[in-house]
Parts: sequence; C-alpha cells; structure tokens
Amino acid sequence: MDSIRTLEDPEATVLALDIGGTYTKAGLVSRSGEIRHVAVMDTASGDPFEQYVPRLAELFDRLRKASEKADPLAMGVGAPNASSQSGMMETPPNFQWGDRIPIANTCSKLWELPVFLTNDANAAALGEGRFGAARGLTDFVTLTLGTGLGSGIVSGGRLLTGANGLAGELGHINVFPEGRQCNCGLKGCLETYASVTGIRRTVFELIANRREPSVLEHYAFEELTGRIISEAANEGDALALEAFDYTAGILGTKMADTVAHLDPEAFVISGGLSQAGAILLEPLKRALEERLFPVYRGRVRVLMSSYTSEQAVLGPAALAWEKLEEGLGGR
Amino acid sequence: MDSIRTLEDPEATVLALDIGGTYTKAGLVSRSGEIRHVAVMDTASGDPFEQYVPRLAELFDRLRKASEKADPLAMGVGAPNASSQSGMMETPPNFQWGDRIPIANTCSKLWELPVFLTNDANAAALGEGRFGAARGLTDFVTLTLGTGLGSGIVSGGRLLTGANGLAGELGHINVFPEGRQCNCGLKGCLETYASVTGIRRTVFELIANRREPSVLEHYAFEELTGRIISEAANEGDALALEAFDYTAGILGTKMADTVAHLDPEAFVISGGLSQAGAILLEPLKRALEERLFPVYRGRVRVLMSSYTSEQAVLGPAALAWEKLEEGLGGR
Repeated sequence: MDSIRTLEDPEATVLALDIGGTYTKAGLVSRSGEIRHVAVMDTASGDPFEQYVPRLAELFDRLRKASEKADPLAMGVGAPNASSQSGMMETPPNFQWGDRIPIANTCSKLWELPVFLTNDANAAALGEGRFGAARGLTDFVTLTLGTGLGSGIVSGGRLLTGANGLAGELGHINVFPEGRQCNCGLKGCLETYASVTGIRRTVFELIANRREPSVLEHYAFEELTGRIISEAANEGDALALEAFDYTAGILGTKMADTVAHLDPEAFVISGGLSQAGAILLEPLKRALEERLFPVYRGRVRVLMSSYTSEQAVLGPAALAWEKLEEGLGGR
Repeated sequence: MDSIRTLEDPEATVLALDIGGTYTKAGLVSRSGEIRHVAVMDTASGDPFEQYVPRLAELFDRLRKASEKADPLAMGVGAPNASSQSGMMETPPNFQWGDRIPIANTCSKLWELPVFLTNDANAAALGEGRFGAARGLTDFVTLTLGTGLGSGIVSGGRLLTGANGLAGELGHINVFPEGRQCNCGLKGCLETYASVTGIRRTVFELIANRREPSVLEHYAFEELTGRIISEAANEGDALALEAFDYTAGILGTKMADTVAHLDPEAFVISGGLSQAGAILLEPLKRALEERLFPVYRGRVRVLMSSYTSEQAVLGPAALAWEKLEEGLGGR
C-alpha cells in the first residue's frame, strides 16, 4: 500500500482524538473537515489510567479496520487540562487518573504518529474556526456550557495561549466577590452560574426563595438535568424561565467584559446548556448588548455551535491540520 | 547633507509624537530607546484643532533646529482614541477638536514621513515592551491610571488589536451592575473606581458615609487631586488609606479576571494614581493574588512603569520602530 504523505492529497486524513469526561471519540478527518470514520467508547474516567490505555488501543484498531487506507499524517488530541508544553493532562477534574497523565506519549506509542496536544476548550475553538460556526472569522471566543464553563480565544487569527499555556479560563472570572463556592476554591466564579451545574444551583436557589409552584420541585438536585430545566422552560414554567433569564443576564454581562478585552467579532456557544436554544440565546443577546461599551454595540454576534456529538473530533482534527500546515513536527 | 536611510545606522532615529489631553510631546528616538531631543507644548485641547496645527508645526521646527542631523526614518503617533485603520482620532473625550480628526494626514503634511498611528494606551504598551518595565516579556498588560483607565494588551509578543482595532478597553469592564455612572453611558465601569477620578469619587463617598475626621474634608471635588490623596495616605490619614485599599481591592479583583482571559506574565501600572507607590501597590498585589484562579498564583507580577513624563514619547517611538522592522510603509 502506498503511503499518503502530502497535505494536498484529497485522501489525506489526520487522526483526531477527543477525550471527554464521559466519552472518548476518535476519527479520521480530511483537510476539508470530512469525518471519514469515527469510533466512540466510554472514557470511564473513574477507573485507573492503566485500564484506559488498552481500551484506547482497541478503539484505534477499530479505526484501522474500518478504513483500509487509514494512513493519517498526524494525530490531534484534545483533553481536559492538557498542556501542549508538557504533553500531560494536569490534574483534570473528574478524572481518577492521577496528577500528571502522559497522554501525548501514550498516544504516540499506540499509533506511531506525530502527536499534537491541547486542552479540550482550545481544541473546540480551533475546530469552530476551521470547520464550524466561526469559519472565516479571525477574532472570536468559544464558550462551552457543560458541567463547567470552558472557553477558547482566537485573536488576530491565532489561538491565545498566554505565558504558561493557560489563557482562556473564563469559567473562573468573578461574578460576585462573596458568591457561590466554586470547585477551584474561589467564590463567585462564572461557571458556578453559567453552566449546567450553575443553572441547577440557580433553580434550587429560586425554589428556596419563591412560593410559586414549579414542576422542578419534583426533582432532587442529583436528578435535575439541563434538559429537564430546558423542557420546563419551553413548557412555560415560570421558575425555569426565570432561571434562564438569571443565567443569561450574568453570562451576558461577563461576555461584555470579554469584549472589552478582546474586541471579538463573535462568540460561539456550545455544550449542554446551549441546547435550550432561544430560551437562553435571546436574553443572553439582550444582556450582552445592554452591557457593551458603546463602540462595540451592534458589532458582536452570538452564534450557536452546529456540532453534533461526534463532530467533537473536529477540534483536535483542526489542531493537527494547523500544525501540519505550519510544518511542525509534533511529539 | 547625507540622509540616514538604514535601520542599522546607530544615528538613525524616528520622530515620536505623544498627544495627551494636557501636553503634546515630540522626540527623536534611536532604535535602542535613547531620546536624542524632546520638545513639549500645551495641547490646549479645549481650543479648535485649526489652532493646534500651526503650533504643532512650530514644535516640529524646534526639533529640526535642535538636531542638525534630524532625518528621522518615520513618525510614530500615539493619541487618545486614535485608530490605525482610519488614521483619525475618533471622538476623543476631553478634546474640542470634533468627531473625526485627521491626525495622521496632518502630521505627514507637517513633516514628510511615513506616519504610523495608534491610540495612546496601545502605544504605551508597545513602549513598555520594547524599552520599559516589560522589556523581554511576550505576555503583559499595561494599565494607565489617570483621568480614566487606559490599557494595552500584548499576547504572544503581539499587540492585540481585535476585530475593529478596539481591543483593550479595560476601563469599561463592569465592577457593579448598578454602580457609578460612567462618561460612556454605562454604570459601574472599572475606571469610575480605579483611576484618579475614581479615587476622588471614593474619597467623597467615604466622607459622606464616615464620621472620622480627615484632612481631605478641606477640599472641594474640583480641588482634590491624586497627589493630595496620596500625600494624605502617606501621612497616615485613615480615610485616604481606606480609599486606596478600596481602589486596590476592586482593581486587583478585576485584574484577576484579566489574567483568566490572557495568562499574562505581568501588569505594568502607570499614570497619576501609580505615583502613590506602595500604598496602592501592596494592597493591589494582595487582592490580585487572593482572587487568582489557583493555576495562576505566584505567576503574575505587578510592575510599576519607570517612565518619567518626557519618556511618554517612547510609546509612539516603539510603534514606529516596530513597523519599520516589519517593513511596512505607513500612511
């Protein structure tokens, strides 16, 4: 079999690996963003990393078998708290894998390829910029509203990395100095309000403070999901609607601060909470516009990510393609 | 007379023009940041721009006469609300010069040179990075605490400009949603607290709320300067000290949010309020460190600008040298 070894070959692919707290997705992705093959498994982040490695080897084997011509040029990996500088996942929350997980080396042993690593939020930003809602934009910010709030910043066509590779932790900007306790040890962080977990906390606060009946009173905190709150809001439940308004008001105000830093063309919103659609988006756009410094008004768009779950591999794929085009060697 | 026309010539200079609300400073600056000659005049921003132009011509003539070899390679200009894209000062606050002032064209008519223009805060950031407190740093933020709060952001060695050339308006991030009225029309902007004007407002608020005597009770609002408040604090006036602590607490908290965006190595503080020195700096560092997301702790320095007043020309000089090195043509 002849190897594919030029970027220009239309058959050329990269191997893209997205490691999430729940699922691990691997795909072969062309330069134009076509996902040729994809394979998914549970991450099982509560089990030791030693058990993950052979399962990842199997996942890669499934891809090799699915595609006879599987000869990717490089591997892109997006993972929580991953550092491009160290090649490690560093104390990722919700993972029982240890403090420094050598994920780049592990991957390159399983499939002998140059490996490019970044954290999941930065990978998402690269993917949206190359293949997704931010295609063609040079200045944008991605916000992933899931269990926490992840973010990636592209400015002047470049992903901002900062002095230590740690730029873009917008989940931890401050909303209220004496606000909700955050997992990070600080109080009042944005992700304690603007995330799936945040809106669940808001619902419970509203139940505690209000006397109107709500369908959400039937759920324990552990049972309450973003989907349940969205559905209640869509059916007109006043408390659920108030929870979305409150969340959107806080997030929009803080997005205005982000604009005052970066002057972006757009935000791209993704993650579980974004599935609420207009119930989140409309009050969010209003709060943002009201809070913008006047020179920015009418200039900042709020876009929804169009990705399906499997398209999460487009983030790490974009990273690999970008690095190949820059002519870098990887690990 | 032979012209100097190479960047490498040690005699080579650029003409640097710093237009402030009070003073206009012009200087001839070498590539290593040596200020060969400098000339200063009142800006008289309350008089029409038509009166400013002949006075600027005279200022340039003084430089020409002071230096027989005055043959600068280019002109760098820093001015409030100046846009590199339009070549205009656009509705600068505190200037009675109109809405769109063609400053780049005006300058190139007075001294036939390629002109590079940026706003004063961005020029300051470039100057600190090339010649000042941030020399050698690739990721830093400058904060000028004067009448308002000006800021410039350098990330990955590049000045951030944003989609519309309007990045770095940190004076207008929100502190309190229903806080102090700002000139921009919003409420609770950072510069209504963390600036010379901001601390004057804080002193008046404290006088209104407290009953302890303070030397600051002797001053009308118009008389009260940053220097008077600093001197009172240095002499142990409890109210003045409380005003600095309050200001530093707010600014430090918001600087932590800036770190969560950009992961900078340092902040560089300048402007009238920074002359208070340790009385501002010590509580500022404490508030910042307390509010930092844990991964950033111990990694962000707070530096004071070492510039004297005349060294303001180093900002626009840095702009001109940078553009010459990039081989750009100017206006």
